[in-house]
Amino acid sequence: MANIVFESNDRASKNFDIVLLIVILLSVAVVILDSVEQINEQYGTLLYVLEWLFTLLFTLEYFFRIWLSNDKKGYIFGFYGIVDLLAIVPTYMSLALIEAHYLTVIRALRFLRILRVLKLVEYLQEASILKVALNESKLKIQIFLGTVLTIVLVMGSLMYIIEGPESGFTSIPKSMYWAIVTLTTVGYGDIVPITNLGQFMASIIMLMGYAIIAVPTGIVTSELTAAKYQNIMKTRKVCHECGYQSNDSDAIYCKLCGSEMDKLN
Amino acid sequence: MANIVFESNDRASKNFDIVLLIVILLSVAVVILDSVEQINEQYGTLLYVLEWLFTLLFTLEYFFRIWLSNDKKGYIFGFYGIVDLLAIVPTYMSLALIEAHYLTVIRALRFLRILRVLKLVEYLQEASILKVALNESKLKIQIFLGTVLTIVLVMGSLMYIIEGPESGFTSIPKSMYWAIVTLTTVGYGDIVPITNLGQFMASIIMLMGYAIIAVPTGIVTSELTAAKYQNIMKTRKVCHECGYQSNDSDAIYCKLCGSEMDKLN
Amino acid sequence: MANIVFESNDRASKNFDIVLLIVILLSVAVVILDSVEQINEQYGTLLYVLEWLFTLLFTLEYFFRIWLSNDKKGYIFGFYGIVDLLAIVPTYMSLALIEAHYLTVIRALRFLRILRVLKLVEYLQEASILKVALNESKLKIQIFLGTVLTIVLVMGSLMYIIEGPESGFTSIPKSMYWAIVTLTTVGYGDIVPITNLGQFMASIIMLMGYAIIAVPTGIVTSELTAAKYQNIMKTRKVCHECGYQSNDSDAIYCKLCGSEMDKLN
Amino acid sequence: MANIVFESNDRASKNFDIVLLIVILLSVAVVILDSVEQINEQYGTLLYVLEWLFTLLFTLEYFFRIWLSNDKKGYIFGFYGIVDLLAIVPTYMSLALIEAHYLTVIRALRFLRILRVLKLVEYLQEASILKVALNESKLKIQIFLGTVLTIVLVMGSLMYIIEGPESGFTSIPKSMYWAIVTLTTVGYGDIVPITNLGQFMASIIMLMGYAIIAVPTGIVTSELTAAKYQNIMKTRKVCHECGYQSNDSDAIYCKLCGSEMDKLN
Repeated sequence: MANIVFESNDRASKNFDIVLLIVILLSVAVVILDSVEQINEQYGTLLYVLEWLFTLLFTLEYFFRIWLSNDKKGYIFGFYGIVDLLAIVPTYMSLALIEAHYLTVIRALRFLRILRVLKLVEYLQEASILKVALNESKLKIQIFLGTVLTIVLVMGSLMYIIEGPESGFTSIPKSMYWAIVTLTTVGYGDIVPITNLGQFMASIIMLMGYAIIAVPTGIVTSELTAAKYQNIMKTRKVCHECGYQSNDSDAIYCKLCGSEMDKLN
Repeated sequence: MANIVFESNDRASKNFDIVLLIVILLSVAVVILDSVEQINEQYGTLLYVLEWLFTLLFTLEYFFRIWLSNDKKGYIFGFYGIVDLLAIVPTYMSLALIEAHYLTVIRALRFLRILRVLKLVEYLQEASILKVALNESKLKIQIFLGTVLTIVLVMGSLMYIIEGPESGFTSIPKSMYWAIVTLTTVGYGDIVPITNLGQFMASIIMLMGYAIIAVPTGIVTSELTAAKYQNIMKTRKVCHECGYQSNDSDAIYCKLCGSEMDKLN
Repeated sequence: MANIVFESNDRASKNFDIVLLIVILLSVAVVILDSVEQINEQYGTLLYVLEWLFTLLFTLEYFFRIWLSNDKKGYIFGFYGIVDLLAIVPTYMSLALIEAHYLTVIRALRFLRILRVLKLVEYLQEASILKVALNESKLKIQIFLGTVLTIVLVMGSLMYIIEGPESGFTSIPKSMYWAIVTLTTVGYGDIVPITNLGQFMASIIMLMGYAIIAVPTGIVTSELTAAKYQNIMKTRKVCHECGYQSNDSDAIYCKLCGSEMDKLN
Repeated sequence: MANIVFESNDRASKNFDIVLLIVILLSVAVVILDSVEQINEQYGTLLYVLEWLFTLLFTLEYFFRIWLSNDKKGYIFGFYGIVDLLAIVPTYMSLALIEAHYLTVIRALRFLRILRVLKLVEYLQEASILKVALNESKLKIQIFLGTVLTIVLVMGSLMYIIEGPESGFTSIPKSMYWAIVTLTTVGYGDIVPITNLGQFMASIIMLMGYAIIAVPTGIVTSELTAAKYQNIMKTRKVCHECGYQSNDSDAIYCKLCGSEMDKLN
């Protein structure tokens, strides 16, 4: 029984997981549809019933998982346990705070279970490349974020002084919001400079954003390229003497034991 | 006769293809012009006649191709056959559903025939590099799209709760539309947060979009760079004396052992 | 005399060029200032006189250059000759067509003369790398542009059918304009989908634009990286026997004549 | 005493720096909060007092630093000295010019002191890679900026002529502002073309922007990739037998000739 719920190797547990994924998708769809006024007016009661039904189902499943689990503490405080809990709490919260029930979309996170259904190996390899790339450039990203926030703070304050409340720059936080909207090239147009000096300053921020956007792209790309390059270069030739697997593809002698490599492969 | 329509090596068939491309361009232009009210009022009847004329011409050509083709099934269900069919169906559909006739712009896809007129070799090589690059990073792209859609779903729901219908966030689907508009840095400004908390959350989504946009670029770039690198590597010469594999394609002597290279690649 | 105008090696001609650059800058500034209403009202006559003065000066200079030039035809139909002519024509045209005089901003192109004042060598090297990179990827860029225009055409027509004139999608050309505004992530918000289906289609276009923007970046970057890589690898070791300059930095024997390289760089 | 203020190795000076960082953060927060009207109305006097308190504190600290410093001139005219001065001047200026006191957000720059608290080594290495990358591509960036400004000038003037004041293109500087908003894909939508020709021209500018945005990204990325590549290369081991230079840093035997590597790099 515990096998079906926790492992996905045999047929029964695979079927269980697939049914679970469909139920998760349906329960998220119910919340989304419920937020549309026209649909709510017509099918509100049905959707309300369905949401509680799904919640009770997930609640049962949650306690079931705790009960079946060998390492109960490990499950409850592990990643999947917390996600499973978060997926049911909002509906119960909505008894006190009506709007909270929209938070049930967090159930979408349960969809990560799909990783158990699909073959994981290839996925994890790719994910780990992305992870290594992100990790390697963590410091570069911190410097970058620090620079962006300083620009946003200084430029936002300057524009607050230059433009003033008439143009919508009613406070420094609002001006900083505008600076982020501009620097990220989103550009809603809800707050917009109208003075000549303000438009000139805004132009400079935009050109800065133009240059700055190149930096995160450059960081991620150079890491991915390096990872890719090392993937091509390495893990090509296995030494038949010492068994070392990471000889370069053009190696003639094994770099660890010095014995001659095979000509083939 | 079949040669002229299906192959593009001799002069006659090349001329046929060029005339066909011009006719395709004209027929697309007719549909576009017809949609402009002022032009429609003045030349509506003329354009209507022209559209039917082009459609009849393409219909004739379509059945002609089926008739002339040796592998009739292969043509009808092949890529070009389906495109040729799609190019004539909308006009006939417009007899029942008037608006459908604008769908004839799908004729633009027929323009892919230009590939037969131009020398294909170089094009296909480039296209296949792009294809390999896309294929290699399919998994990375799926992970990326999954992440983006989850962010859109969770952030959209959060903003729906925070902002509510007064700011235009009238339902979760609408909020998700806003999240996509923001995350992709399009930023129409038709729906915009007005509360302080909403603007703060929006700023975070924008900065996320800033970081996230780096990922697809990084993926495509690293694949293209790797393809480029392997193209350079492919032309390398192997030294038959010392076995060094990375001699330049124009090397006469091995750069490591100094022995003469083979004349043959 | 001709030396001063045409060459920039001696002191006199260098000074001439610097004065010329300042005059060009001033004449462009006059046109820009003249377009600002408040300034025009106060200093309109002065600016009008100045513009004619600069134009007469440039006209004199133009004929002077023709007169002094040894290869008169070469100058007149060469790049600089045409730019010099374009810089004076708009003012004369403005006698017939008043608005034409703003076209004199094209004088800004004359600023390319700065290349003669600065040391050119380094600049040309960089420019040629960019040029090679662009040339190498011409075909890739053509495929890319073709894809973008097809998406714009098909998506524009679809949105014209879906949204209709009420939302501002008044014709297919207008819808194509909207599609470009969206796909390039500019997102003015002057035309915006309001139906549910339209917003859904728009979301798809935005996500497409998100993916597509990665392609030109990837193309340019991989070309620049390859050029950079080859710059690092090449032009390091000169063979003291045959004089070949492009031996790899790790070469032990010259790849052209097979003689041993110096140990010292 | 001077040790505590100027160096960060011993415990006392580290604590001093951490307290200072918290005070800087608080003083910036005071300015930001003061700009929000509702908060200003309620706590205005308190915030006013706090700002003066922080300013007096920073002033004391500034003169203290000068007094304690061995190289007084070096501190006053050095980077940190100027930042420390700029952090206190605006408040005093606000006695004459009220709005000036918002400029005190410049205190955020003092936060760079955090570099003294954190371990610097790793940071400086990363920063220097970014710096080298920027330096190497200075010329490419200049060419790029020159191109962008010329496009902005010429396109802005053209749109001024085409669209005219009715659509908001009231002067060439305003049109240039619009061109920057468009080219950087910010797209506020405050100024927007309404004529057919104007929208066509705008589409071309957007597609240009699409292509141009690839250039800075390409430049930064290729530099970062090259820096990364050279970092890998730097750790390579040279074989003293055959002279092959690109052995991995962990190689024990040369991969080309099989002879044992030196222990010393």
